[in-house]
Amino acid sequence: MEIHGGNIYKLQREGRKDILDYSSNINPLGVPESLKKAVLENFLLLERYPDIDYTELREKIGKYNNIPAENIIVGNGATEVLFLYMKALKPKKVLIAAPTFAEYERALKNIDCIIDFFQMKEENNFVLDKENFMKKAAEYDLAVICNPNNPTGKFILKENIFEINEYLEKSNTKLFIDECFIEFIKGWEDKTAAGFKSENIFILRALTKFFALPGLRLGYGIVFNKKIREEINNIREPWSVNAFADLAGKVILNDEEYIKNTEKWIAEEREWFTKELKKFENNKIIKVYETETNFILIKLYNKTAEEFKNMMTEKNILVRNASNFKFLDKSFVRLAIKDRDKNEKVIKAMKEVLK
Amino acid sequence: MEIHGGNIYKLQREGRKDILDYSSNINPLGVPESLKKAVLENFLLLERYPDIDYTELREKIGKYNNIPAENIIVGNGATEVLFLYMKALKPKKVLIAAPTFAEYERALKNIDCIIDFFQMKEENNFVLDKENFMKKAAEYDLAVICNPNNPTGKFILKENIFEINEYLEKSNTKLFIDECFIEFIKGWEDKTAAGFKSENIFILRALTKFFALPGLRLGYGIVFNKKIREEINNIREPWSVNAFADLAGKVILNDEEYIKNTEKWIAEEREWFTKELKKFENNKIIKVYETETNFILIKLYNKTAEEFKNMMTEKNILVRNASNFKFLDKSFVRLAIKDRDKNEKVIKAMKEVLK
Repeated sequence: MEIHGGNIYKLQREGRKDILDYSSNINPLGVPESLKKAVLENFLLLERYPDIDYTELREKIGKYNNIPAENIIVGNGATEVLFLYMKALKPKKVLIAAPTFAEYERALKNIDCIIDFFQMKEENNFVLDKENFMKKAAEYDLAVICNPNNPTGKFILKENIFEINEYLEKSNTKLFIDECFIEFIKGWEDKTAAGFKSENIFILRALTKFFALPGLRLGYGIVFNKKIREEINNIREPWSVNAFADLAGKVILNDEEYIKNTEKWIAEEREWFTKELKKFENNKIIKVYETETNFILIKLYNKTAEEFKNMMTEKNILVRNASNFKFLDKSFVRLAIKDRDKNEKVIKAMKEVLK
Repeated sequence: MEIHGGNIYKLQREGRKDILDYSSNINPLGVPESLKKAVLENFLLLERYPDIDYTELREKIGKYNNIPAENIIVGNGATEVLFLYMKALKPKKVLIAAPTFAEYERALKNIDCIIDFFQMKEENNFVLDKENFMKKAAEYDLAVICNPNNPTGKFILKENIFEINEYLEKSNTKLFIDECFIEFIKGWEDKTAAGFKSENIFILRALTKFFALPGLRLGYGIVFNKKIREEINNIREPWSVNAFADLAGKVILNDEEYIKNTEKWIAEEREWFTKELKKFENNKIIKVYETETNFILIKLYNKTAEEFKNMMTEKNILVRNASNFKFLDKSFVRLAIKDRDKNEKVIKAMKEVLK
């Protein structure tokens, strides 16, 4: 399974220890120091089961989002929350805006349902055609949007989500919005669909991208629909969030310094890296799709993604061949945005590889 | 939900910080120091996704059990492995030897199946009637045995499991054996059903009881049936084992000192605590069911479990009211076995409460 970019473990087993992983979209500021301190001070938390209701954790996440704790569902990574929602809703017909993250499809695989895709077109720079999407989605039980979208980096404005949701409510089409990367967007607090408190919307979040903790496994859902919440609680497995993930959620959301530093980093590096990548556009070597989050989709004109990936791997940089995303062809690659030092290395390597 | 004994979190939220938790069957030696050291040295593991195949982890667990890594399936606690097996097998009719752990039923709840219980009778000291069990089980798709059994502490010998399995193979009845507490049994390596390498048997294990890590969430399954293994891999969610649990599995199974100390402790304390509890039998105050593992079932003659639990809670000791186990009435209580100091406190409190 290679759904999250290249398999860094495979490369490392082959002895490639110092490889830069640009296939994984993780905050380069790394694990917050506040968490390390908290883990050391609370190591003995491991000796007992976590609170089966995760009361305090849900309260902290609720506060972070200005939403009551009862509307928060936690899980073993965003993955578990996604799977739980799909199992609870059991939609018969689902429309997914694509190209996008492949896990939605996978989560629906064991549910007997029809999956269709609404194409966000290359000629529109992968921006969602709102009018046609909502008209088509009204024929479905569930519409799925990733916002900001992986791998395109495009973000749908709140007012457009509002309009889509209003339209879909009439046909009783539920709206699932994956906001796992939203915190990398400037001013995200005012841009999230959570603000609508709509019973028709389910929002997926992760604490593991923004806080660089993918190994810890902590995700959550924001859900105002009581029936769906109850059904999720009915089918969920107990203690799925481990004690350190539980602890992390209580600690890092208060780490204002880390949050501020991350906001500063992403604003600067997104601009710098985009600008540098765009220089390759001058000779029509690549096309850059502007991003609002912490990864960038590019299209190669003179190489396949596989060739490019192999050449970059030779230079100790692992990139994501994006050609297996629905509606993307073999010329697409996704790059993470990291810190300046690493981004410079990538630009340098690309100059050599693409010259 | 109070499936794992009393809710210590609720008591702690009420300000009861120093309570002794005898409702939870965790090794009192606590988190292995070797793990603490490993976590400190490998904290940055959190910054990336765990190996999606958990190759090294499965190799380590395989080695510990003298079984090839390909026959090991890992999960987010034994809970996830249990749920995965049931979802993969999708049995239509299941027979569960009871009284036993309630999670088997819960794992089957979302599968459309008939669940029956085979009663292990109080008058037989809750020992399984092998002959009648296997005859009845042959009418089912799946038979479930917890061995050693929670909450009775009884262990079925390997030769009896072999005989049951041989009988069940003829009717194509699969056998699920929960061995989550087996390592507390003296000489368990020669007593496990894993030795049969039978395609008909699935064995559930946890690393979190013996190594005192329930908060970390790490369980595994031993499975020789290729079809079931493939189906589980087909339906499982990616990265369900967090990076520290992955690390723990690689470290603690080699911690021979911890393992030796635990074996010494359980041998001594099981004997001492049982002997002390049996003194209450003289005046027919309680009955003690002898255990082969790290918890003891008792029956109260003069009080209900609820009354006893409340009185013990007053004395800062949380016990497990076992009356909600199938076939147990309101007079049953389960006690963990901990270290001498704590066990003495429990005996002292019981003397006061039961006098």
